[in-house]
Amino acid sequence: MKGIIGKDNTISEISRRLRDSPIFVLLAGCTDVSKVPGITGAGATPDLTFLTPTLDSEIIGDGKSISSEIPPITPDGIPTPAIPSRAMLNLSSAESFVVDAGFSIYPKTSYYHTGLGPARNPEVGRALIEAEKAFGIGQKIGKLLSKGSMVIIAETIPGGTTTAQVVMSTYGGFRSSSSLPDDPTDVKNQIVRRSFARKKLSSKEPLELVAEYGDYTMAISLGICASAETDVLLSGGTQMANIFHLVSLSSAEKLPYLITNRWLMQHRHDTMESLVPPGRLLVSDLNFSNSRHLGLRAYERGIVREGVGISAAFFSALANGSSEEMVYSEIDRFYETFRDL
Amino acid sequence: MKGIIGKDNTISEISRRLRDSPIFVLLAGCTDVSKVPGITGAGATPDLTFLTPTLDSEIIGDGKSISSEIPPITPDGIPTPAIPSRAMLNLSSAESFVVDAGFSIYPKTSYYHTGLGPARNPEVGRALIEAEKAFGIGQKIGKLLSKGSMVIIAETIPGGTTTAQVVMSTYGGFRSSSSLPDDPTDVKNQIVRRSFARKKLSSKEPLELVAEYGDYTMAISLGICASAETDVLLSGGTQMANIFHLVSLSSAEKLPYLITNRWLMQHRHDTMESLVPPGRLLVSDLNFSNSRHLGLRAYERGIVREGVGISAAFFSALANGSSEEMVYSEIDRFYETFRDL
Repeated sequence: MKGIIGKDNTISEISRRLRDSPIFVLLAGCTDVSKVPGITGAGATPDLTFLTPTLDSEIIGDGKSISSEIPPITPDGIPTPAIPSRAMLNLSSAESFVVDAGFSIYPKTSYYHTGLGPARNPEVGRALIEAEKAFGIGQKIGKLLSKGSMVIIAETIPGGTTTAQVVMSTYGGFRSSSSLPDDPTDVKNQIVRRSFARKKLSSKEPLELVAEYGDYTMAISLGICASAETDVLLSGGTQMANIFHLVSLSSAEKLPYLITNRWLMQHRHDTMESLVPPGRLLVSDLNFSNSRHLGLRAYERGIVREGVGISAAFFSALANGSSEEMVYSEIDRFYETFRDL
Repeated sequence: MKGIIGKDNTISEISRRLRDSPIFVLLAGCTDVSKVPGITGAGATPDLTFLTPTLDSEIIGDGKSISSEIPPITPDGIPTPAIPSRAMLNLSSAESFVVDAGFSIYPKTSYYHTGLGPARNPEVGRALIEAEKAFGIGQKIGKLLSKGSMVIIAETIPGGTTTAQVVMSTYGGFRSSSSLPDDPTDVKNQIVRRSFARKKLSSKEPLELVAEYGDYTMAISLGICASAETDVLLSGGTQMANIFHLVSLSSAEKLPYLITNRWLMQHRHDTMESLVPPGRLLVSDLNFSNSRHLGLRAYERGIVREGVGISAAFFSALANGSSEEMVYSEIDRFYETFRDL
């Protein structure tokens, strides 16, 4: 299929499932890691990073930013990936389901409330107070939603590539990506070092690694993958590659699929290809070069790269009959509804 | 099947679906009607009726009353139907999904947040500010949950038989049931009269009737029934008979099933049989006569009668292989976990 790169039989299988009303599960939450200055591009200031998952949830759920008059678009016009993602979901048969994976500020759209609260910075303490509960919530979501539909797992968690980096460092020398054009590897590595200095786990049990160093999007994803009765499609970059690896440690028979995009592969193809076998990995050839808007064209410079399920949303739109031209036109149009606010 | 009364082919069809992991959707919410003194038995005082759906949700979701140290059991030991209902769900393959159908106090269990808020008393104003939104939420829930599983709709809304009475009075002389042994028909009829004096609708459109006089459990149910891809089983008494009738006005081809119980039929079999055709109506032969506990035996005197999906929970336990003896033993045991608090 034009626009999607991967093994032919994987593409045709996922394409078939995406035509049949998949469920787009957005795991939205916070980690204190995002308040470390310079760690993420997902928020104008460190404090405002806690609002980003809230606004992303409102955009995915209701197509608009409700909790802030200022939409999540930088002064340069660069939008949160929730905006192109929602635009593409408009062209698909997917139904969205927003899950509280540790909100700090609850969104004004319908969502599945868990009350988990933000994850802690693993430098200063065990990251997840309620890892088992979160895993159980994931299992429940998997059982509820996967009876006949493919479940897509997407995420919005500022600082999430850093928590992924800490967890990945327990099992190998993999590097996570970043929403910033210049990956703040020094700051990330410092968090890894300090986290391990605080506590070095001997366990290699996936949920235990996640509880000590990770965030709630990981724990809930592990639960969904453990209980889902149909295929799961992880949509994202190195955070999802980390989850893929953790799932593969738990159960080699029930592997999910993973879809990422060209921008992410340009930055971290080594991590993706090391952690995800070729038959399970798809790459969307998202390309904003011809957008009418400077802020969207900025994605071509490696800003943002991944998040909020943008790659699965793209594939869903294509699988349901939209041409790439229609997709990019809808993204431009939908983006404009935010600039007029 | 022993314990369930109805047409043989209906019983065998529903029994088959109940073995296949149905989803037990609890619509939990409030209406200002419950604050009218003497209108409901669901709460020790009129103000405390707003806490009942919260505690019922916690019992269904997590098996315990979290937001109050005092469980929803009267001083005489009579429990909320959430307690026997959860006990029977323990013996079933059902997965529960709690939905905010207008909470006043949000529960400390996972639930689908909508932010609708309590319905208003139709005596004083239009009952639902956001009826269309609630209907849309119901449609979304129907699409998300009904891909392969049967959806059971249950409710907990103090004052709900009164809002049902007001809506029913727009289309016939039907009488709703009550959680009180002596149905407060005078108070209910006064609310009907005053509601119609405030505004007499000429419309017979179901959602419009619900918006003017009803509550959010009705609007969400209409949405679920409109979008569900598989069978829906309404579990409850006259409130569910009202919903059944409203659905039948909207779409005669996609009728749900309804399960109620013997206690309810003893009180209002005329309403049930007038509104629900025999091929769609099941009656569970719940019988607490031999319970070890006085508070459960009180159900035999027509106290409580229905609610929180007690009848579908009973059928689910039986369909999944429990004997009636096992069911009543589990109810007694589970009830005791609350008395020891």
